[in-house]
Amino acid sequence: MAIEAAWQFQGLTYPNPAVGCTIVQNGAVIAVGAHAKAGNPHAEVMALKEAYITLSNDNKIDALISSADIHNYLLINHNNIFNDCDIYTTLEPCSHQGKTPSCASLLSKLYPKHIFISSSDTNPEAKEGAKLLEAAGIKVTYDLCSKEGEDLLRPFKLWNKKNLVTYKWAQRLDGTIDGGLISDATSRKRVHEIRNACDLIVIGGNTVREDRPTLDSRLVKGKAPDVLIYTRCKDFTKETSASQTATACFDKEIPLFKIKDRNVFIEDNFEKLIEYKNILIEGGPSMFEATKDVVDRYLCFLAPRTGGKMKFSNDKIDFKILQSTKLDNDLMIWMEK
Amino acid sequence: MAIEAAWQFQGLTYPNPAVGCTIVQNGAVIAVGAHAKAGNPHAEVMALKEAYITLSNDNKIDALISSADIHNYLLINHNNIFNDCDIYTTLEPCSHQGKTPSCASLLSKLYPKHIFISSSDTNPEAKEGAKLLEAAGIKVTYDLCSKEGEDLLRPFKLWNKKNLVTYKWAQRLDGTIDGGLISDATSRKRVHEIRNACDLIVIGGNTVREDRPTLDSRLVKGKAPDVLIYTRCKDFTKETSASQTATACFDKEIPLFKIKDRNVFIEDNFEKLIEYKNILIEGGPSMFEATKDVVDRYLCFLAPRTGGKMKFSNDKIDFKILQSTKLDNDLMIWMEK
Repeated sequence: MAIEAAWQFQGLTYPNPAVGCTIVQNGAVIAVGAHAKAGNPHAEVMALKEAYITLSNDNKIDALISSADIHNYLLINHNNIFNDCDIYTTLEPCSHQGKTPSCASLLSKLYPKHIFISSSDTNPEAKEGAKLLEAAGIKVTYDLCSKEGEDLLRPFKLWNKKNLVTYKWAQRLDGTIDGGLISDATSRKRVHEIRNACDLIVIGGNTVREDRPTLDSRLVKGKAPDVLIYTRCKDFTKETSASQTATACFDKEIPLFKIKDRNVFIEDNFEKLIEYKNILIEGGPSMFEATKDVVDRYLCFLAPRTGGKMKFSNDKIDFKILQSTKLDNDLMIWMEK
Repeated sequence: MAIEAAWQFQGLTYPNPAVGCTIVQNGAVIAVGAHAKAGNPHAEVMALKEAYITLSNDNKIDALISSADIHNYLLINHNNIFNDCDIYTTLEPCSHQGKTPSCASLLSKLYPKHIFISSSDTNPEAKEGAKLLEAAGIKVTYDLCSKEGEDLLRPFKLWNKKNLVTYKWAQRLDGTIDGGLISDATSRKRVHEIRNACDLIVIGGNTVREDRPTLDSRLVKGKAPDVLIYTRCKDFTKETSASQTATACFDKEIPLFKIKDRNVFIEDNFEKLIEYKNILIEGGPSMFEATKDVVDRYLCFLAPRTGGKMKFSNDKIDFKILQSTKLDNDLMIWMEK
């Protein structure tokens, strides 16, 4: 349940990992929480808040939003009600005071019976939370559902190591991507939420020419990330550089180019990606083919319809499904090759 | 949670409905149960068994398998531990003694605080369980998540009204169905479980000629349902009946025709369907087109691969996704048009 809860916010938590937490007392599930967004409370805090209401019947905590406020309220009012609770968390509780106080410190004072951890935190600033818990006398079990925990955590590990490159597309059940609108409003809004957590969107030159997209996150009143337009302009000659010629191919009056403080790059390679951390590629079959060696993770929005002609890819591919969620009438499917 | 639990057994419970049940005490989820198969305990009994272990710490009930044994054990040992429980069930608890004792009768004696029901039972033999609960002084709330409950229950209503016709296919993410094995072993086993709960499998003549399938449920050591081969044989003339000519087109030495006690019909229409209750159609694009007016529900096993040429359908279709479950590395998607 903790892992599933965390996946609901996969793609939205950058630069933080997606984390989920379940609290169990005497075999009963009393709370499930997840980290929704950087700056919001961590999963453990969300679950502890819910569990506190269930156990104490004190609803005052419900009005508290900030992590610091919830931490403080719990520290003052917990009255040892968590002492017979087991806590399952997909990631080792953090040991550092970042945007919120340390979860390991909070948990060590609430003193639950047993903490089960799926993945250890290898981030040097946050790790060793579990040691702090053990030092406080709390029983800790490591590596529970560790494979599922790693699938959930891999984006975070990639951000810390190099960057995360996600290829996103929307298709129908018959694999087609052309011929008009594909996804539900709920899926389109989710894409804007994901864009809002990105620092670079990569798109193919043909898509810019034909669809004239803005590539912002207006549906959630979010930001317009930088854009890399990947193109191999047919006018390319030895006399002019690729980017000079390609630049000339685009109508610079479309909204994509008009957004203040947005950088737009036009390139015939992916070297720019190294300067960014959380990258979303959107495109059709030729982008799918062109980017296959740089993509870490695939995100498919599948609409249960048929109708188009062009398939999302002409390659022969085997994906591994990491997680699938029904969003309104579409499926959102996270995959790796 | 009750609804999701029930869906895990959709297609397997005939002639019973798929039902789920969740038990909550003071805001904590203490048990989730579902009805797995006709003859097995009802969802309420599965959930009560689990809840009893959680609440009583008496594990002896764990060894009891039959519904009658679990009912009796609970009636003798419940010691009023369910009195502060809320019970959420996707279908009104049954009022009749069928293969198992009445759930409404059991619940009225265990006396939980509140029972929430998604769909009322309109089966004349089983209905009015809720009245029995109310007469016992238990608070009952009707129509919770009633839309989701109806989606779950529709097969059962169709069995009672006429029959249920499910069209099942396996496809890749690119919509293709040809070019070798598509589904995982887990999906193939599930198909055999579903076949084992059917009384008729419908298949196209070309599939019989080309794939020479056995159409049994050997992977789960189950039965071989009757088969209707739907064909429009090219040799059809006014001089011979359709079924006489079509019969001549098949190699009667393949295993499909050799199974004892199985009826195999070869027809150019679907009139035979009215004689059966739980019907599974398996086929390619021409069967999809031919059966579109008789199908109630669609079941797609989606493998996250690409590779074939032939799409599952050449029609223009809009499905509604009822539920989707990840089975190993495939998705199992229940849909209606």
